[in-house]
Amino acid sequence: MYYSTMLSSQICIPRATVLQSRKNWDSSKSNNDWKPGIDQISMHETEHIRKYPDAKLIRLGIGDTTEPIPEIITSAMAEHALALSTVQGYKGYGPEQGNMALRTAIAEKLYKDTGIKGEEIFVSDGAQCDISRLQMLLGPSVTVTVQNPTFPAYLDSSVIVGQAGEFQQEIGKYRKIAYMKCGPENNFFPDLSTTPRTDIIFFCSPNNPTGHAASWQQLKQLIEFAKANGSIIIYDSAYSAYITDSSPRSIFEIPGAKEVAIEISSFSKFAGFTGVRLGWTVVPEELCYSNGYPVINDFDRIVCTCFNGASNISQTGGLACLSSDGYQALRNVVDYYKDNAKIIVDAFQSLGLKVYGGKNGPYAWVHFPGRNSWEVFTEILEKTHIVTVPGSGFGPGGEEYIRISSFGHKQSILEASRRLKNFYK
Amino acid sequence: MYYSTMLSSQICIPRATVLQSRKNWDSSKSNNDWKPGIDQISMHETEHIRKYPDAKLIRLGIGDTTEPIPEIITSAMAEHALALSTVQGYKGYGPEQGNMALRTAIAEKLYKDTGIKGEEIFVSDGAQCDISRLQMLLGPSVTVTVQNPTFPAYLDSSVIVGQAGEFQQEIGKYRKIAYMKCGPENNFFPDLSTTPRTDIIFFCSPNNPTGHAASWQQLKQLIEFAKANGSIIIYDSAYSAYITDSSPRSIFEIPGAKEVAIEISSFSKFAGFTGVRLGWTVVPEELCYSNGYPVINDFDRIVCTCFNGASNISQTGGLACLSSDGYQALRNVVDYYKDNAKIIVDAFQSLGLKVYGGKNGPYAWVHFPGRNSWEVFTEILEKTHIVTVPGSGFGPGGEEYIRISSFGHKQSILEASRRLKNFYK
Repeated sequence: MYYSTMLSSQICIPRATVLQSRKNWDSSKSNNDWKPGIDQISMHETEHIRKYPDAKLIRLGIGDTTEPIPEIITSAMAEHALALSTVQGYKGYGPEQGNMALRTAIAEKLYKDTGIKGEEIFVSDGAQCDISRLQMLLGPSVTVTVQNPTFPAYLDSSVIVGQAGEFQQEIGKYRKIAYMKCGPENNFFPDLSTTPRTDIIFFCSPNNPTGHAASWQQLKQLIEFAKANGSIIIYDSAYSAYITDSSPRSIFEIPGAKEVAIEISSFSKFAGFTGVRLGWTVVPEELCYSNGYPVINDFDRIVCTCFNGASNISQTGGLACLSSDGYQALRNVVDYYKDNAKIIVDAFQSLGLKVYGGKNGPYAWVHFPGRNSWEVFTEILEKTHIVTVPGSGFGPGGEEYIRISSFGHKQSILEASRRLKNFYK
Repeated sequence: MYYSTMLSSQICIPRATVLQSRKNWDSSKSNNDWKPGIDQISMHETEHIRKYPDAKLIRLGIGDTTEPIPEIITSAMAEHALALSTVQGYKGYGPEQGNMALRTAIAEKLYKDTGIKGEEIFVSDGAQCDISRLQMLLGPSVTVTVQNPTFPAYLDSSVIVGQAGEFQQEIGKYRKIAYMKCGPENNFFPDLSTTPRTDIIFFCSPNNPTGHAASWQQLKQLIEFAKANGSIIIYDSAYSAYITDSSPRSIFEIPGAKEVAIEISSFSKFAGFTGVRLGWTVVPEELCYSNGYPVINDFDRIVCTCFNGASNISQTGGLACLSSDGYQALRNVVDYYKDNAKIIVDAFQSLGLKVYGGKNGPYAWVHFPGRNSWEVFTEILEKTHIVTVPGSGFGPGGEEYIRISSFGHKQSILEASRRLKNFYK
């Protein structure tokens, strides 16, 4: 997940022209030199299956949903698809910002009492895409902070857009990016008094990979920090549906947030839409550049230039997700995964390990003090045939940790629990 | 469609910090100062409806498909949606590059005899999105050529990424972009002997808005030009399904193209998927940077970082589009629009006007010598209640022209033809 090369910003087909060629690339190396950590996991998997062809691999690595989507939602999508074959039901281009009915439903259902309006919500084909569209908006010259450990997409997109500077192999960090350590020592919230100012702060809560949901107080501090520094928070709330306690589900629950924050979110983990593709970004009208120009205008422009709307079929599904019955049905699926998380957490705790997360998010974040996370990954795979994610894939702050996903059929989770308790000590 | 302001590349919330603020922005102006030409058309429409509430407006402006999608395709999508509610049919994340079955089907059905393989095809949520992902790959420092007139998205995305330089109001061009005039005087193909070298050449064929499909000879010249100059052609073949004669449907029909070209295309106009969202980009493995590094690796990286795959439902639809029966059914819909185009062309020709396009594409490009295109737009709207697109929206080379789309129900097209013949002389 950490790239040692940067995209060349100028290109030329084979001809001796004076152009900046790709730094640090050795033609004798494999063509897959840039492949991210997740692909390294795939390679370990493949090798493992080759070695143990009869092993029943349990994949608790990549956070991919596994349970069926409730019928009330899929039948709405099927109906929409079939209607496209009729004169009255055919729909062509929709507004790039998303169908107003869906934007309004998101505001009313998920941002109730925050004052966020449908007009401030931009429907997309997912948070991964929104992150990069935001990066296009921000450009190469902004300074950026990420949590450490962090979901890699903020960093990967930062490298591509040119914000990150060189990768410093010895410390596992990009030179121009600021990292805010989040660990048990600071209750998974950075010490802002020692955090340098940057233009942009990426903050994910509930956090991937640590599972920590920031408290109201913590978010208040973050907002004040951003306000004092003239920074913008890009707040990723993709896992808010997994919150069990009273932690905020949206940064906009905290006063002052609208002047400093953009929030991204997704139907992926909340509705099992990982393959259907639907998400959204909230840009409050109050959020302005230093000269007073509203950021929402720029984001609207990005959306209208670089995007052409999420699939109408997916949007119809999204609307069904937010209906009374649809939402309730989805809560049952989320509860299923939360129950899985309890089983996973319990299994690791029974081994005497310190386990974080798993309460407000679908990931358990397990600490193996003094151990190299790839070694632990390999050991778990070898002894229990369970695929996890080594913490170092999320940054240097992830070393000594393993992330285990709770997405899976109950029987797989129970089997994983059994194997961990019996074979991995 | 031409922006007089550029996105600020650094942002800050209200606080006096030394950051580049948005150029040329006047807080007293409307918040919609950036709104593209198409929105100006909407405003004219709205005003027109207000003035003539009983007028039956015929919209032949924006190129939005209107005819139902054949059932063989929509039922496949509906089936896929319903299967997501079953344990065996549920699918989560797919490969970001697209499902291999679809990539292969595109290669076999649409790139037969070119040698293009499924592995070189990246499925997307549409050409608009691919253009910007390519721009992210290219970065701010590449030099770019567009045709003149041109589909605006290449320019708009170029401005956003920072390639374009200042907009020169007097000549209607961006300072750092090269424009290749394409008009009847040069058979809609630029004089390459007077075209400056740039890193990237955007080339759309069949062309939006002129409707010209480049010949084999013309493309051969373009490829040789790119090869000699060490440039990359980004070839937009979104309208190739509308070709009537023997013009090439893909640039890869011409030898040498794989070393200099990327091709983008779309299911939008070919399958009525404007709201479903599906497209693809072809990056040949032979295409390399000046130091030999394969561009496909960089594009793969962009796709894996900035995107998360097209909707699985849409991809299932795409596969059905390329089945024997699906493809034949779609040909009938395309023929329907082509027939519309003949009616439109005929109507304008009957007025003694020179009409281009309409033969290999769904747009008629009508010349009004010496006339301002917005004035002609307004006159046609006023006299016939038909919405078109003023040619200046496609660049200075579009002045004196009007683009009329052939997407519409037959009765609307016939009515439009009647009104043009009777009321607009």
